[in-house]
Amino acid sequence: MTKTTVVVHSLGNIGRNVIHSLESAPDMECLGVVRSKGSVGTRPLDLRGLPDFADLADLEKARGKPRVAILCGPSRLVPDAAKAYHAAGVSTVDSFDIHDEIGNLVAALDATTKAAGCAAITAAGWDPGTDSVLRALFEAMTPVGTTFTNFGRGRSMGHSVAARAIPGVADATSVTIPIGGGRHSRLVYILPETGADQEAIRKNLAADHYFAHDPLDVRFVATADELAAVMDSSHGVLLERTGASGIASNQILKFDMRIDNPALTAQILVSCARAVTRMEPGCHTLIDIPPVKLLPGDRMDHIKRLV
Amino acid sequence: MTKTTVVVHSLGNIGRNVIHSLESAPDMECLGVVRSKGSVGTRPLDLRGLPDFADLADLEKARGKPRVAILCGPSRLVPDAAKAYHAAGVSTVDSFDIHDEIGNLVAALDATTKAAGCAAITAAGWDPGTDSVLRALFEAMTPVGTTFTNFGRGRSMGHSVAARAIPGVADATSVTIPIGGGRHSRLVYILPETGADQEAIRKNLAADHYFAHDPLDVRFVATADELAAVMDSSHGVLLERTGASGIASNQILKFDMRIDNPALTAQILVSCARAVTRMEPGCHTLIDIPPVKLLPGDRMDHIKRLV
Repeated sequence: MTKTTVVVHSLGNIGRNVIHSLESAPDMECLGVVRSKGSVGTRPLDLRGLPDFADLADLEKARGKPRVAILCGPSRLVPDAAKAYHAAGVSTVDSFDIHDEIGNLVAALDATTKAAGCAAITAAGWDPGTDSVLRALFEAMTPVGTTFTNFGRGRSMGHSVAARAIPGVADATSVTIPIGGGRHSRLVYILPETGADQEAIRKNLAADHYFAHDPLDVRFVATADELAAVMDSSHGVLLERTGASGIASNQILKFDMRIDNPALTAQILVSCARAVTRMEPGCHTLIDIPPVKLLPGDRMDHIKRLV
Repeated sequence: MTKTTVVVHSLGNIGRNVIHSLESAPDMECLGVVRSKGSVGTRPLDLRGLPDFADLADLEKARGKPRVAILCGPSRLVPDAAKAYHAAGVSTVDSFDIHDEIGNLVAALDATTKAAGCAAITAAGWDPGTDSVLRALFEAMTPVGTTFTNFGRGRSMGHSVAARAIPGVADATSVTIPIGGGRHSRLVYILPETGADQEAIRKNLAADHYFAHDPLDVRFVATADELAAVMDSSHGVLLERTGASGIASNQILKFDMRIDNPALTAQILVSCARAVTRMEPGCHTLIDIPPVKLLPGDRMDHIKRLV
């Protein structure tokens, strides 16, 4: 079997998990890791024996051109990173998760991939991502109805970043707790800067648009260790839809998962790195992907086994 | 909007539900129903105002050629019916559910559709069908693990037919009850023929390969009304997978649904009748279909809304 060659772009929490998922993928070969110039050579244990490079050109000289780049940096860096890989004819997958901007990103990457004859799968995590597939499937099964996406309990990166931006906050983490009907409360652990006004922090947090619309519970901690002690990677979602198929109401659909968050995101990225090599040029999301293309091996074997 | 024209082939339990789903599909137009010559004109209320015909040629003369035929007869009649429509250049969707024969059917219909430049989606119900999509998605999320498909409680058509074939059985219905780990017990209601030996029926049923491997509970009823009183269309499934994403085990995925069985099957057929017009020539299953193609309207609108 010819293996799909990939490069891991950025070695944070997701990148480390992607390397683990690649190690157990029978059909993928990781050529190396591209990371910022200042990081090259650091944290060698996280590289698990892979060579690291400051850019694609260096990797290409040493290892040849990869087929797919798995983008593991923060969402805001995804558009530029993706376009740079496309310019080199390398397909990309990313877990860009700013819901409101996905439509524009799809349009932008559709142009850059088609110009280069490569492909992209964007927003390829669990939400956006596999949850999006479930939401589409649920609507196809019950065109009339209401879907609720209940997140948690688990830490929200977006809300944690917003909390950290409040004046007087040294560090923070925000836990999302589902309260039903697709609504959530927020439990925010805050390590204040020395001498910071806790009442002012509480007030500014409650006024921030990330927190203003939900029940909020703030807990101040005294040390970085106390904060670290609540920062596990557990997460989950309960997707619920009750709807009608034709004239039959009370069709009840539920998808419930409890997961290690970055491990699942990384695994979905790796499955999509496989799928992207099987897609036409253009930018796709998970609802554009035939599910069988996410799996290694032969389509007909999967049909006989799974259908 | 140009509507997709369809013909409903066969007017049983599924066909009646398909007509209801078509009535609320904004982008579909039902040209009529094709049914056996002896049935034409009977049960006019079930037709809900649609014209019925003994074959495609008659329908075509009166209403024009449909784009898609929705095959609503029993599984064993699907292969020949599909091929006849393909020969006329009409795409098909069906809910063929004999799992062991799906691979061969895909290969056969792939040839007939490609020869005619049309397409087919086969095995398009909930299992096989949407459950197959879930099983594929679960494996893409956790490549190492075990999936259990727990059916019920609900009536099994296959097991009911097998029970009816036992000597001395006038009529029967079999209920599937999940007992965990993808195993099931069977509760079979039997209306015996007058003077039949109940002990012999019980023995023959227990020896039948449909029932030999599961716990079995047999209840004899005295009248057809008693049997009718337990024959509702409720069904459900609990799909469970616990597996690993990379090195992260204990990834817990569950899909739980409780539904009106023929109404859901019919709705999935109608969503697939939409999707089949958007697929390349060939025979596809639900794991081959980009989920967004199942929904009416514009792809980019769905990406902005669901992803």
